[in-house]
Amino acid sequence: MTDALRDRGEDALLDEIRRLVPPGRGVLVGPGDDTAVLAPARVPLLLTTDALVEGVHFRRGWLTPRALGRRAFAVNASDIAAMGGRPRAALLAIAAPPALPVADLRGMVRGVRAAADAVGAALVGGNLAAARELSLTVALLGDAPVPPVGRGGGRAGDQLFVTGDLGGAALGLRLLARPRSMRGARGAVRRWQQPTARLCAGQELARRRIAAAMIDLSDGLLIDASRLCRASGVGAVLRADRLPLAPALRALAPRAARALALAGGEDYELLFAVRPAHLGALERARAALGCRITHVGALVARRGVRVVDRSGRAVVLPHHLGHQHFAALR
Amino acid sequence: MTDALRDRGEDALLDEIRRLVPPGRGVLVGPGDDTAVLAPARVPLLLTTDALVEGVHFRRGWLTPRALGRRAFAVNASDIAAMGGRPRAALLAIAAPPALPVADLRGMVRGVRAAADAVGAALVGGNLAAARELSLTVALLGDAPVPPVGRGGGRAGDQLFVTGDLGGAALGLRLLARPRSMRGARGAVRRWQQPTARLCAGQELARRRIAAAMIDLSDGLLIDASRLCRASGVGAVLRADRLPLAPALRALAPRAARALALAGGEDYELLFAVRPAHLGALERARAALGCRITHVGALVARRGVRVVDRSGRAVVLPHHLGHQHFAALR
Repeated sequence: MTDALRDRGEDALLDEIRRLVPPGRGVLVGPGDDTAVLAPARVPLLLTTDALVEGVHFRRGWLTPRALGRRAFAVNASDIAAMGGRPRAALLAIAAPPALPVADLRGMVRGVRAAADAVGAALVGGNLAAARELSLTVALLGDAPVPPVGRGGGRAGDQLFVTGDLGGAALGLRLLARPRSMRGARGAVRRWQQPTARLCAGQELARRRIAAAMIDLSDGLLIDASRLCRASGVGAVLRADRLPLAPALRALAPRAARALALAGGEDYELLFAVRPAHLGALERARAALGCRITHVGALVARRGVRVVDRSGRAVVLPHHLGHQHFAALR
Repeated sequence: MTDALRDRGEDALLDEIRRLVPPGRGVLVGPGDDTAVLAPARVPLLLTTDALVEGVHFRRGWLTPRALGRRAFAVNASDIAAMGGRPRAALLAIAAPPALPVADLRGMVRGVRAAADAVGAALVGGNLAAARELSLTVALLGDAPVPPVGRGGGRAGDQLFVTGDLGGAALGLRLLARPRSMRGARGAVRRWQQPTARLCAGQELARRRIAAAMIDLSDGLLIDASRLCRASGVGAVLRADRLPLAPALRALAPRAARALALAGGEDYELLFAVRPAHLGALERARAALGCRITHVGALVARRGVRVVDRSGRAVVLPHHLGHQHFAALR
């Protein structure tokens, strides 16, 4: 029989978890006491939380427990990246069905820990609760650059750029939901399973004061661009022909590829606005960003986000685009 | 028809929540950006997380959404109290069924905010996800005293004290689960619904260096005492006749009252160890602690936690005591 959570006492499980988590740098007290204790911070702090819920954000067959743990960290690290910050300390709250194998719990903790380690952060504590559905809620504390880069610093005339490429994760997610169509689509599936927070790019863009406004792309370029616009009190024009399509999208019809790149979500790339005067600095920084960047449009005074083709004509988009979790579960 | 989460777009819900959360002291950027930004900290930081899951920690009929929000904050603040710290910034991650009334969501956010306000902390951000069952996961950042008070500082010969009284919350929880027996039990029910983190007591005991080791009582005196003992490498003797029974327990048989006080859990009082040389300082501090404290036993070299009567004879306890969530859901 599988060794499941319900076969262990709570303290035995917590002990098991603690053994997986060595103390990190700047951690005065790690997991095992009432709270973690961290060394004082000399810079402003960033604090964020994001959750992955089974049946909403993932299904258990779609990725290994370890990849699920890495993903739970990455979606939070992406928010830190969007402020130009550095992840420092993570908490992991797991709610899990009693039948969950202990090996899966270990895998998730190891995944979070490995993802934290990889960027110089530490997993410092957490919580384990029984629940009917599995969920991982990470809270992440980070060091902010001075000044931090928010969503609200954009102005009409700023040029818009995105890191990496778009739409691959959304394609991977769709392929996972229909496994028969997955042949040859490993790249897209992996793109969904293993998002990479653009920490290096975010930090460089903040440190060199290149990004006037920035946001991470979790719900799709259209939705996230409109959030940046709303916070900045401007609108945006996006060029459909300039979208950096993920390689896996090339097998799709052009309209379908564009729809996924604009609205598929789960890319965890960065969208940022650059003042015209700073475009030269951006060119000089390119090599230091650690990833490709692409000029996809501009901020404009007229509110709303419009997608246009090369000649400036509006591109007609499918009606329901982007993530709306509550509507989706209706 | 009730206005439910599924009837709103995600951004409309987030806007609604943001309007409920004004910026707090030391908060440079509050809810609404990718992450919150907090002023630098000059002291070590405490970081903790705890979750309330529907069907495991509460049922929706048992307390108002607002009380649920307050409770979600309080169980985290209690961990900060056990280190002698001050809550500073809270994150609230809600996972909620799409049919949840928006008014309930508002109530929960208001509850967390009110509880944070009341102790000088701020609600700075959070997350909202769809899920089949309702859960509230709070992460709490706090300022630590120097040195923070952990679980591991106890020595044989230290005397053990608890704040407040014990067993009332556990009685209230049992009464809520069997509503017909609730007449006249409002006090106990309220004791469960509205736990109070012993922040003032925790801070004073740390500041005056009275507590050598401390833990909050979430799972019952027996289990939490054994955790403190394990961390300190000692055992404990608890005096059954000295337990500060909650007034509502007086209507029960003495054995039942004692079992709830020892093992009912959810008290969110503090258990702390005091060196014999510091007992005088504890007496002088009593008035500043903001609550009753009771001498309930001592740490001893022999491992394990034993409960004895006035004459030192072992008290026989019911077999299955204390919270073991995963076993309970089997």
